[in-house]
Amino acid sequence: MKPVKKAKVYLGLLHYPMINRRGEEVATSVTNLDIHDISRTARTYGVDQFFIVHPSQKQRELVQKISGYWEKGFGGVYNADRKEALSRLTICADLEEVKQKIYEETGKNPLTVATDAKIYPQTLPYAALRNRMMKEENLAVLLLFGTGWGMTEALKQSCDYILPPIALYSDYNHLSVRAAVAIIVDRLLGEAWFFDPA
Amino acid sequence: MKPVKKAKVYLGLLHYPMINRRGEEVATSVTNLDIHDISRTARTYGVDQFFIVHPSQKQRELVQKISGYWEKGFGGVYNADRKEALSRLTICADLEEVKQKIYEETGKNPLTVATDAKIYPQTLPYAALRNRMMKEENLAVLLLFGTGWGMTEALKQSCDYILPPIALYSDYNHLSVRAAVAIIVDRLLGEAWFFDPA
Repeated sequence: MKPVKKAKVYLGLLHYPMINRRGEEVATSVTNLDIHDISRTARTYGVDQFFIVHPSQKQRELVQKISGYWEKGFGGVYNADRKEALSRLTICADLEEVKQKIYEETGKNPLTVATDAKIYPQTLPYAALRNRMMKEENLAVLLLFGTGWGMTEALKQSCDYILPPIALYSDYNHLSVRAAVAIIVDRLLGEAWFFDPA
Repeated sequence: MKPVKKAKVYLGLLHYPMINRRGEEVATSVTNLDIHDISRTARTYGVDQFFIVHPSQKQRELVQKISGYWEKGFGGVYNADRKEALSRLTICADLEEVKQKIYEETGKNPLTVATDAKIYPQTLPYAALRNRMMKEENLAVLLLFGTGWGMTEALKQSCDYILPPIALYSDYNHLSVRAAVAIIVDRLLGEAWFFDPA
């Protein structure tokens, strides 16, 4: 059975304010493959829009240049699948701008959902969020992902909900953000649970 | 509940014989981020070993050089998590060498499992393979992933089983191999289904 989500679902890849390996607050650099991998994941799973968020104009221009090559330049002729995936990409300066764009499109303030390696009071199980996405038409969900060594504590605390760690019981939990997005989107919007009962 | 697999589970990333965008049989080039992303996914989910397979000695040396930097060079000091993830990486020339190494380690001929965008007679549901991995101590499973535009038909047909398409009902199914590995390993070895019932 094909899973049909009723809610609008958005992804946001944030680069500020992040933590670096020394625990300092920084803006991280954009990674080329994040743009492509996450765009392709978003398109495959029917995510409505993928936002790359960076406070630096130079970094935003870089993302624009890379996606423009594939969308309008020779890249789109060479690889049409990549072009199509990037058509859902939007570049923003900060989280407020992302929320504003979602509000303009849907008339709703999105539920913001982060991921983290710890359990918080506002931790929401995957199945509970999935249920809401499948059932609530009047809902917009913005899934937020950090880069570098992750979001600052204040940013996480400002989110409405936090998803449980991907691998709570593992003694090693250092997935790339590209892998983390793929796994979380599959858990929330994937087909496996439906066509494939044990 | 922590999922405990009884079987030995291996990943193989193949670069030959693959299909290119024109449908020709080729060897694809190694991608740097495949090495890191898939090593980190393997380590997080307790995969026993990750094999990168390439027929060209130059390409195998390149992988060795990159992983050596992180394992033995300055990289390992700078980023110990990356070093640890790469400790499960093995470089081989062909699939026979991979199977041989698994046989030497376990005394078993591994079950070879590919993934594909179509349904085959030997298609095996995710839940069925997961069940076997969790229950059968006397089992070694080798999950094979292609690069470029995917494995040749003959290579796929030579595998014992083929997993169903990740997004059977999607009108777009062009995930990066890094994302595909993450999703499939999570479906087969992940915790979500346990600690998180609907």
